[in-house]
Amino acid sequence: MSRFLAGALRAVTPYTPGEQPRGVETLIKLNTNENPYPPSPKVLEALNGRAAENLRLYSDPACADFLAALAETFGVGRDQVFAGNGSDEVLAFAFLAFCEKGAAFADITYGFYPVFAQLFGIAAQEVPLREDFSVNTGDYAGVPGTVFLANPNAPTGLCLPLAEIEALLRQDPDRLVVVDEAYVDFGGESAACLLGRYDNLLVVGTFSKSRSLAGARLGYAVGSPALIADLNTVKFSFNPYNINRLTLLAGEAALADAPYFARCCTQVAAVRDETAQALRALGFTVTDSKTNFLFAGAHPAVSGGEYYAALRQSSILVRHFTLPRIENWVRITVGTAAQMQRLVDVTKQILDARHSAAR
Amino acid sequence: MSRFLAGALRAVTPYTPGEQPRGVETLIKLNTNENPYPPSPKVLEALNGRAAENLRLYSDPACADFLAALAETFGVGRDQVFAGNGSDEVLAFAFLAFCEKGAAFADITYGFYPVFAQLFGIAAQEVPLREDFSVNTGDYAGVPGTVFLANPNAPTGLCLPLAEIEALLRQDPDRLVVVDEAYVDFGGESAACLLGRYDNLLVVGTFSKSRSLAGARLGYAVGSPALIADLNTVKFSFNPYNINRLTLLAGEAALADAPYFARCCTQVAAVRDETAQALRALGFTVTDSKTNFLFAGAHPAVSGGEYYAALRQSSILVRHFTLPRIENWVRITVGTAAQMQRLVDVTKQILDARHSAAR
Repeated sequence: MSRFLAGALRAVTPYTPGEQPRGVETLIKLNTNENPYPPSPKVLEALNGRAAENLRLYSDPACADFLAALAETFGVGRDQVFAGNGSDEVLAFAFLAFCEKGAAFADITYGFYPVFAQLFGIAAQEVPLREDFSVNTGDYAGVPGTVFLANPNAPTGLCLPLAEIEALLRQDPDRLVVVDEAYVDFGGESAACLLGRYDNLLVVGTFSKSRSLAGARLGYAVGSPALIADLNTVKFSFNPYNINRLTLLAGEAALADAPYFARCCTQVAAVRDETAQALRALGFTVTDSKTNFLFAGAHPAVSGGEYYAALRQSSILVRHFTLPRIENWVRITVGTAAQMQRLVDVTKQILDARHSAAR
Repeated sequence: MSRFLAGALRAVTPYTPGEQPRGVETLIKLNTNENPYPPSPKVLEALNGRAAENLRLYSDPACADFLAALAETFGVGRDQVFAGNGSDEVLAFAFLAFCEKGAAFADITYGFYPVFAQLFGIAAQEVPLREDFSVNTGDYAGVPGTVFLANPNAPTGLCLPLAEIEALLRQDPDRLVVVDEAYVDFGGESAACLLGRYDNLLVVGTFSKSRSLAGARLGYAVGSPALIADLNTVKFSFNPYNINRLTLLAGEAALADAPYFARCCTQVAAVRDETAQALRALGFTVTDSKTNFLFAGAHPAVSGGEYYAALRQSSILVRHFTLPRIENWVRITVGTAAQMQRLVDVTKQILDARHSAAR
């Protein structure tokens, strides 16, 4: 820390991203919810050829072509969409722009929300999930701050029905609800269909998961024209050229290949549900995930930390959060069918070894 | 504007980037200081092939390979370099992190500095340039806020010698000086060589100009390990994966081709100096630019606004700022020799036409 750092930032605890090991090819990497399948061949086509030659020119600060395609995908107006350098940037802008009355989010959710609040000096209110990790929307009644709701939630995988989102929106029309839909394409339903009826709703999404473009950094928001204008005020006061040329091309090409997108999501969901069954058969509690990861834990014979460490010893990397209420759980990204079979096989071995040791 | 926007942001006037016309091929585009030459062939090689397939995986949040190459280029430690999504993001982080006592910058300089200050509610002090647009470092004595110095300056093109930068650094060892070297490779000298002696110095740079990668979005900072750690605190609290995979590859490949880089810079500087002479011969005052643009104006027969409009009518796009002291000037990016010849020819026609009309 330098002597020049602002006092307000001295106490900030930055977000810890999932480990990105360098020699990734030797590990089965199931720790950061990446898609096991590559981006659409249309994306690869768009990036090959002569696209790179134009890199000498700035990218389009209005992201016009990409946003036109995104608006069409969502069936909303061109002035209702916004693009960010990953959804983290979109969320950061939303915290900066819309949290004068504070921010509220679950105690168990995306770990970045409290970091954004700290960074911008925003009062944050944690609203505990129920014992079974479900959201009780009633608990948000009277909460003044902007609500950030990951739906489906991470790392629990659970999805709140749209009727419950509506209940949140109706509690206070002058309170903004930001629905973070990073994982919605794997089995949830987007709240974007509610935008016609509620102007206190902002939907945030990403191309990192269902579109296989984590490494391209592309996120978005869909909302009322006024909210989108506000996000643009922040963007054009922070980093007008926030998305590079190649990522804009990749995003547009990904949207153009709807069948590939649907196939990837279906495949991930199928492998997810099979793996969940297998882990339950081995004694784990596994939540009803609507995402591209499984949240598994509460095993009678192995703790979350032990399971994480044992998998790691077998070159399988999953994510373990040493946090209250979930320290006995792990989050497992859904990989290919072969990777998940390997996970299940190794899990059996781990449990067998513990069983033998216990005898 | 929505009713949810924070009060502090309601008065912010966002930065206006230079126009990015869609049908760029019909225009000679000399308005946003892009490089007329494409990126190094090594960059194109790095981006072709199978790079795009890995886009399903997150980029390296530590930017390790790129930053190792950057540290080597500058001859500094690996813990003295930082990468941003363009230098605008680096500057935004610096404003957020280091301006508790305010910020100070010239009245005529990069127009984004006052916007960053507004966005983060930072007290900003404008320090006027001399009549000839040169910086009087003495005017900064006693100024408490972090100094942001574009060197060479934009849009004036003038370069402050390192001895003057040292004078600024010595005025107050507890005041940070951020030297923004976006244009330094075209004829200036980087202040990075002073880092060994001054820990109140942060050097910021970009790959948008001399490396022909404006569309890839890649900026950097070089400074003391403590300052770099602070920038990382902000980055990991804002957007840990702030640079995408393809841009990291492009940046690394660009650094690997030093001869191409040197040739491009030399060529731009040569065309710049020839064009400056030609414009002076036509009656313009042209500053002694050490950048990839010319600042030309104060012509007895044509105002800055008229010259801008007349060039635009001939499909040549330059930048005109309707700001006090420089409204009679235009900023002209240095293009290819052919483009600059066309600029000079069209300028002659514009002046001839005015001369005929005046008779």
